[in-house]
This record gives sequence, C-alpha cells and structure tokens, in this order.
Amino acid sequence: MSLTGKYDQQNIFAKILRDEIPAAKVYEDDHILSFMDAFPQSPCHTLVIPKQPSRNLFDTDPQQLLAVMTGVQKIAHAVEKAFSPDGIIITQFNGEAAGQTVFHLHFHIIPKFSELTMQRHGRGQIADMQVLRKQAEKISAAL
Amino acid sequence: MSLTGKYDQQNIFAKILRDEIPAAKVYEDDHILSFMDAFPQSPCHTLVIPKQPSRNLFDTDPQQLLAVMTGVQKIAHAVEKAFSPDGIIITQFNGEAAGQTVFHLHFHIIPKFSELTMQRHGRGQIADMQVLRKQAEKISAAL
Repeated sequence: MSLTGKYDQQNIFAKILRDEIPAAKVYEDDHILSFMDAFPQSPCHTLVIPKQPSRNLFDTDPQQLLAVMTGVQKIAHAVEKAFSPDGIIITQFNGEAAGQTVFHLHFHIIPKFSELTMQRHGRGQIADMQVLRKQAEKISAAL
Repeated sequence: MSLTGKYDQQNIFAKILRDEIPAAKVYEDDHILSFMDAFPQSPCHTLVIPKQPSRNLFDTDPQQLLAVMTGVQKIAHAVEKAFSPDGIIITQFNGEAAGQTVFHLHFHIIPKFSELTMQRHGRGQIADMQVLRKQAEKISAAL
C-alpha cells in the first residue's frame, strides 16, 4: 500500500520545520506552519502543514488534522482578503499515484485568477523567494 | 466578490439533504452526510457535506468545518479499505472561477487508480445509481 509508510525526517517540509532550509512563512503557532509554495500552481499559492510528523491524511492524528483545517480556513480568508482572487481551490494529495510529492501532510490553498491558467500540480516553476516573501507578508497582514 | 453570497435553498445538495432527490448515501450523523458523487471524476468518488447550510469555506461555521473534516478522514480511510486505490485526492472548490458547481460546502474524496485517467472536475458522465449504491454499501461496511 502506497498510502502509508514510514515518515522520512529528511523530507523538505521537515527541513523547513527545523529551519534548515528557508521558506516564506505566513503564519506559525504551536501546532501548524503556513508558508508559500515554492513551486506555485498559481500566484500566491499557500501551504498549511502540522508541526507533528505525519505523511498524509492516513496517519495524521485527528486532533492535528483539525488544527490544520482551522488554519486552512483562517489563512484562506486572509489570502482572499490580500489578493481578491476569483476563486480558491483547496487540495490535499495522498500517495505518489495521487500526485503527492512531499510526504509530510499539507493542504494547498490555491487562488484562482480568471485570467490566468493554473499550472498542474508538480509542474510549476520555482518562484523567486523575494516575491514569495512579499506575498507572505501581505497574507500575514490580512490575518 | 464571487466567493460569498446568499445560500440557495434549491441547490442540489440541499435537495439531497431534504430527501427530495435520491443519493447513494455512505454515512450520516447529526452534522454531516456522505454520498457518492453522481458525476465521478474516478470510480468511487465520494462527497462529504455538512447538514448546516453554507456555500463554501468562506461562510462555514468553524465547528461545522471540523465535523466535516473528521468525516472526511474517516470516510477516506473506508474508501481506501473498500477499494484499495493507489492514491486519494481531497479537493474543495470555492467560487465558480475555481470550479465550484454546487453552492453547498463539499469535500471530494477521489480515489486515484494508476491505470485510469481521472475526469476533469465537472466533466464526468452521470453514473448509474445502482453502481453508486453498491459502492456506497461497500464503503459503509468498511467504516
């Protein structure tokens, strides 16, 4: 079964949580971290992850999941307030076959701008960190 | 702003909640209902909705959202147990520009089978109700 497995402490989000690699952080509390996706499917594509290690929905503690979802709703509101997209898509992938590329639970908050075509998941170009940091600041300010 | 607006009591999920139109039901409690998507993007595509009216993430009561997510996690586990897909995708759309077609909050649980190409959201063919009812029974039994 590809949906479950051992948590890899070297996954990129684990490294972000340990501050070993940089991220454009939006929000942080005892339970969750939110930061900009470095390979955005659309401008201002934001992620929310739990601090507690889990690969995906199938091994996440239910209470952690609820903390993440409370964050997703708040941060989606802030993304909407900051950038006024025409729509917002929430996605969460479980298993490589489903498109999961980082094996630490994460929810995508993807603004949809009518005039822009979204990149497919995992096919985006790496974004400029300075641009991401400005976006993150604007979302933070709207929280 | 297209993300918020008045809740339409005549939307198709409101009619399902009032038993005015049929659905292949998977699970029901005081707060949520789960049933098979009649236009599946992939076989065994399942939905979870709150009973309380809300259009999407932007007008949903936070406690209702948590009840829905608790359901999404449990039902995703049951879908996995019942059909052993290679992956599972969770999606939730906000606003017409993002692909939202029914304006009652809903989360999609979409099994991904490696050998099958998923239909695009809103582009699937209507499924046979007898097939959906058999799938719903199998998921219910795995809960």
